[in-house]
Amino acid sequence: MTDLELAQRLADAAGAAIRPWFRRPFLVETKEDFSPVTAADKEAEAAIRRLLAQYRPDDGVIGEEYGDDRPDAARVWVLDPIDGTRAFVTGRPLFGTLIGLMQDGQPVLGVIDQCIIKDRWVAGPDQPTLFNGQRCHARHGLPLAQARIGTTSPQAFVPADLAAFEQVRMAARDTLYGGDCHNYGLVAAGHLDAVVESGLKIHDWAALVPVIRGAGGVMTDWQGQPLTMASAGQVIAAGDAALAAEIATALAA
Amino acid sequence: MTDLELAQRLADAAGAAIRPWFRRPFLVETKEDFSPVTAADKEAEAAIRRLLAQYRPDDGVIGEEYGDDRPDAARVWVLDPIDGTRAFVTGRPLFGTLIGLMQDGQPVLGVIDQCIIKDRWVAGPDQPTLFNGQRCHARHGLPLAQARIGTTSPQAFVPADLAAFEQVRMAARDTLYGGDCHNYGLVAAGHLDAVVESGLKIHDWAALVPVIRGAGGVMTDWQGQPLTMASAGQVIAAGDAALAAEIATALAA
Repeated sequence: MTDLELAQRLADAAGAAIRPWFRRPFLVETKEDFSPVTAADKEAEAAIRRLLAQYRPDDGVIGEEYGDDRPDAARVWVLDPIDGTRAFVTGRPLFGTLIGLMQDGQPVLGVIDQCIIKDRWVAGPDQPTLFNGQRCHARHGLPLAQARIGTTSPQAFVPADLAAFEQVRMAARDTLYGGDCHNYGLVAAGHLDAVVESGLKIHDWAALVPVIRGAGGVMTDWQGQPLTMASAGQVIAAGDAALAAEIATALAA
Repeated sequence: MTDLELAQRLADAAGAAIRPWFRRPFLVETKEDFSPVTAADKEAEAAIRRLLAQYRPDDGVIGEEYGDDRPDAARVWVLDPIDGTRAFVTGRPLFGTLIGLMQDGQPVLGVIDQCIIKDRWVAGPDQPTLFNGQRCHARHGLPLAQARIGTTSPQAFVPADLAAFEQVRMAARDTLYGGDCHNYGLVAAGHLDAVVESGLKIHDWAALVPVIRGAGGVMTDWQGQPLTMASAGQVIAAGDAALAAEIATALAA
């Protein structure tokens, strides 16, 4: 089984664990950051980890729910079973399961999976991005003034970052709120032109980078640099390098 | 054919007109208010109006795309073929088709239909709200501090309204952005506790009122009064009257 086949099997297992909980009453824990965490989240990550222990026992794992297991290994799987738990608990089918693989600190494989409406993006080192099995392409050639950008919530930014984001928003054609990881898939599919967010942790972005790049798009931090394990969690995803650079300039204005 | 059967047939026709255009390249017109308007929007409303002309030739029609036809009739169908055109053009399947029926100025029947992911809410004078064919119920008994609220975009509010909304947001447990009419369906289904918005036109809210009320929820303006043809477009949808009143109080603070 190739890494890409395994990654999709992991997404299948997560979806099977998540679907029975969607739009059903359930208990919600509260973490320190007040993001809702559900039984679905834990069961999905446990299902993924069982498969990884079986098929890739030597690889490391970084997961949102169950912490790190050999995060310094050459190959590390980076998991967020439910990105967009706020959407999940309110019955909105735009949350996603994120499965990334880092090789020597570089994201090389990514899956974004929405298990209710069955939107899935898959990308690997030797596999350009597929959206529901079809090759997809980010939109190229639009300046920011003609670009539609997405961001999940104004409250996801600290005040200084929100002020910077507002520079981008006012220069853009239009802004779409909500969406979490699904927005990045829409950039890869050429429907949305860019996403600008901050406060992301590695499990939020590791899977996104290969999906965006494998569709011909660009993903950087707010300074226009590649994302690394040490990144501060400020990200730009854009259809092409010129738009990413224009956004980075607007953020720094 | 009953009004409720017809309304669902209208939604079916709209969905059939819309689906071929979703996530495909298309030309976008720009209206004065800069909301995107698509071929799908026009074809869907035309399809609905053809059926209304055939089955209810004496009824009035108010539609977002093709204007008013006997809006002073006792019975008036109020149409928004694609509520959430911003979501539609960016490939996000949360836009919706809104079909309302006003009798003597009162909204008596409503359909919210998401034709891609097949979420449909239906309510009529003699029909409590059905979500995908099943009776659904708004959540009751939560104070604002425990409530999850939704709103589509901070930019949908004029500054004074945004300041008022921020009072509600800060008092609420959590806020979900994006979603358009789909959020109101989630209130009717008991997943989201309230929606607070302003700037709505009659075609945005006429279909929502029966759906919310028929699920045991409450829909008012920001002063806690019933919505009428003369309303200013400030709306509260809430799981129960106590939450709606708490929100109205916070908006006025």
